[in-house]
Amino acid sequence: MTGRRVIRVQKDVLAKNEEKAAGNRSRFSAASVSVLNFVSSPGAGKTSLLVKTIDGLRGRARIGVIEGDQETDNDARRIAATGALVTQINTASACHLDASMVDKALDEMSLDGLDMLFIENVGNLVCPASYDLGEDMKVVVMSVTEGDDKPVKYPKMFRACSVMVISKIDLLPHVDFSVARAIENARLTNPDIEVFELSAKTGEGLESWRDYLMSRAR
Amino acid sequence: MTGRRVIRVQKDVLAKNEEKAAGNRSRFSAASVSVLNFVSSPGAGKTSLLVKTIDGLRGRARIGVIEGDQETDNDARRIAATGALVTQINTASACHLDASMVDKALDEMSLDGLDMLFIENVGNLVCPASYDLGEDMKVVVMSVTEGDDKPVKYPKMFRACSVMVISKIDLLPHVDFSVARAIENARLTNPDIEVFELSAKTGEGLESWRDYLMSRAR
Repeated sequence: MTGRRVIRVQKDVLAKNEEKAAGNRSRFSAASVSVLNFVSSPGAGKTSLLVKTIDGLRGRARIGVIEGDQETDNDARRIAATGALVTQINTASACHLDASMVDKALDEMSLDGLDMLFIENVGNLVCPASYDLGEDMKVVVMSVTEGDDKPVKYPKMFRACSVMVISKIDLLPHVDFSVARAIENARLTNPDIEVFELSAKTGEGLESWRDYLMSRAR
Repeated sequence: MTGRRVIRVQKDVLAKNEEKAAGNRSRFSAASVSVLNFVSSPGAGKTSLLVKTIDGLRGRARIGVIEGDQETDNDARRIAATGALVTQINTASACHLDASMVDKALDEMSLDGLDMLFIENVGNLVCPASYDLGEDMKVVVMSVTEGDDKPVKYPKMFRACSVMVISKIDLLPHVDFSVARAIENARLTNPDIEVFELSAKTGEGLESWRDYLMSRAR
C-alpha cells in the first residue's frame, strides 16, 4: 500500500482492532480461558498440531478452537473429529483474522467450561502479525521444509510471537534445515522466544509441548 | 479489513496499481521480455527453482530477476551467484509486491538484452493475488509438504495463476500428499491451470518446465 491517506486508514483499522481485541481479552479473562493464536505459512502443520495436542490433553484440559481459513471448513472438520468444540471463520478475500471476526465467533460459542481456546489463523507469515485478537500469546509454527532463514525474512511475525514451534522434525533427514540456525535466527529477531521442536506425525516432542501448555493455563 | 470506507480506499489502491501495472507492461513489451510473477507460501522453494531454471537455460535465454522480501537480501545473493542480473526489493511491513515497487526496480535495472524477467514475490498465498505487476503470467509454486488441499483453501491465488508448479517431489515418499488430488483441487478452482511437477534438488521434471518457458518466450 502506498500514499499517506491509505496509511492513515490502516492506522484507523488497527486502532479499531485494538478496541475489539481488548473486549475479547475481557471475555477470555472473565471465563478464565487461556487463548493461543496460532500463525504460520500455509501448510506448516497447524491443524495436525492442534489435533494431536487436543488428543493428548484429553482429560487434562477442555479445549475449544476457532478456525480461520479463506475458504473451506476442512480444518474445522478435522478438529471436530477430536470432539473439541470448534467454530469456523471463512475470511473470503481477507488475509488474516481480526478481533471483530473473533468477537462474532465468540457470540456463537460458549467459553463456559473451557480451559483453553486455540485460534488457528489464516496461513500467512505477514499480515496476522499486525492483528491482536485478544490472545494471551501468539505461537508461530514453522516446518523444517520451509528453510531455517524464515525468522529473519519475516521478522515482524517472529517478534510478535512468544513461542516458535519447529514442526515436521521427522522430515529433518530429507531436507537442508539446521535446527540450531533456525533457533539462532529466531533469537536474533526475538531473544525471548520459547522454542519447541516436534513432529505431530511421530509424536516426538509433543509431551513437553503439552506440559508447557498446561503450565501456562490460568 | 472492515467498513465501507476502507473497502473504497482498497479499490483506489488497486485502481492505482492497475495503472502502474499497465505502464510496466508497456515497458516489458517494448523490450520484448517475457515476465513471470512467482508466488507461493514462504519456503515453497521459489528461489531454488529460479536458480535451477537459470542454470539450465544458460546459453538459451538471458534472464533477469526482481526479488521481493520483507527483509534480507538472502535470495538476491543466491540468484546473483548464478550470474543473472538481480534487483532486491525489501517491502518491510508490506505483504506483497505492487506495480509501483516493480516500476522503481525497473529504473535501476536495464531490460536491454533480457529474454525473460522473473519476479519473486513475497512468500504469501493471499495478498499477492490481488496485485498485477504487469507480468505475462503468475506462477504458483506449491511444495508437497504443504498439503494437497491448498488450492481450495486459497482459491483466489490459484485462480489468478496460469501455472502451478508442484515442488519438492523428492519428498513425496515421506509426506501425505496426493499429486492427483492436488491437481484435481487446482482444476476445481481454475480448470485451465497448467501443472508441472518437479524437484529442484534432484532435477526431476526440470527439463519439461524449462522447455515450457522457452516455448512461452516472446
